[in-house]
Amino acid sequence: MKDLPLSKVYQLLEPGPVVLLTTARNGRANVMTMSWHMMVEFEPPLVACVVSPADYSYAALRAMKECVIAIPAVDLASKIVEVGNCSGRDVDKFEAFHLTQIAAERVAPPLIGECFANLECKAVDTRLVNKFGLFVLEVVKAGIDPIQMNPKTVHHRGFGEFVVDGETIRLKSKMP
Amino acid sequence: MKDLPLSKVYQLLEPGPVVLLTTARNGRANVMTMSWHMMVEFEPPLVACVVSPADYSYAALRAMKECVIAIPAVDLASKIVEVGNCSGRDVDKFEAFHLTQIAAERVAPPLIGECFANLECKAVDTRLVNKFGLFVLEVVKAGIDPIQMNPKTVHHRGFGEFVVDGETIRLKSKMP
Repeated sequence: MKDLPLSKVYQLLEPGPVVLLTTARNGRANVMTMSWHMMVEFEPPLVACVVSPADYSYAALRAMKECVIAIPAVDLASKIVEVGNCSGRDVDKFEAFHLTQIAAERVAPPLIGECFANLECKAVDTRLVNKFGLFVLEVVKAGIDPIQMNPKTVHHRGFGEFVVDGETIRLKSKMP
Repeated sequence: MKDLPLSKVYQLLEPGPVVLLTTARNGRANVMTMSWHMMVEFEPPLVACVVSPADYSYAALRAMKECVIAIPAVDLASKIVEVGNCSGRDVDKFEAFHLTQIAAERVAPPLIGECFANLECKAVDTRLVNKFGLFVLEVVKAGIDPIQMNPKTVHHRGFGEFVVDGETIRLKSKMP
């Protein structure tokens, strides 16, 4: 992974791709599929996400306050679904789905080698966790895989229907 | 607009489209462009979004606790950018950009006639507003335009670069 300036992180998440979220606790890593996330601030980049108490990852994220948001390209679509279809309670998903753990620099949960971007995150606000499972995270380090050029991401429409990135249009905008 | 069951609202927002947000205060409506939103709960549908104090809409949303999330298809891309490029402080954006206000049923801010979906929302948690501009909204009524079939949405990558919905893929998933 090559360093990505933190000021560019929002460009990866603002379009709303399905992502993978890794956590770690007691020396064991887990990964879940997640679509409920949004940017909260440009820089330092803050991200909100929802992890339900029904998700096995919830306890680890809540206790350790660290995670990695890994962004898969469309070629990983079947793995995205496999990861979402089972629980870390029952399965070592990294082993089962041949996902490569790479040590992160600033947090304990691993990066995912197959993903084109990995964002190391620490939870900075947990006030809405009890009521909504809503965590506010700060991205403390970001990396991209320079080998994966112009990766297309996927967006979940429900029940395993995904829309893949299509054409790009450029309009004169004052918005960052 | 035709009623959309509230249980289906997440299917519209989970993919991460750019949306328009309408507010109203003192008899005057405004609209802004927004990409920072996510689902928080399936049903009743809860949505989180970030509206910055720098946005003219912030004061109205904060005071009135009501808004409409209107979802535009790609044919409105140039209007999405025009709406985002100016402020309601200076411009009546509905008039300037020929957007049609339609009275909502449950909230004061208007629906947008040109959008293929309109979600009437009330703010239900404002604990993260002071620190992050993060509002938690409940969608209390949803409608879709049955004339607009299979609308393609746009996703913002920053600086006026948008990716349009491309092909759809379907995989066997246990996830809703």
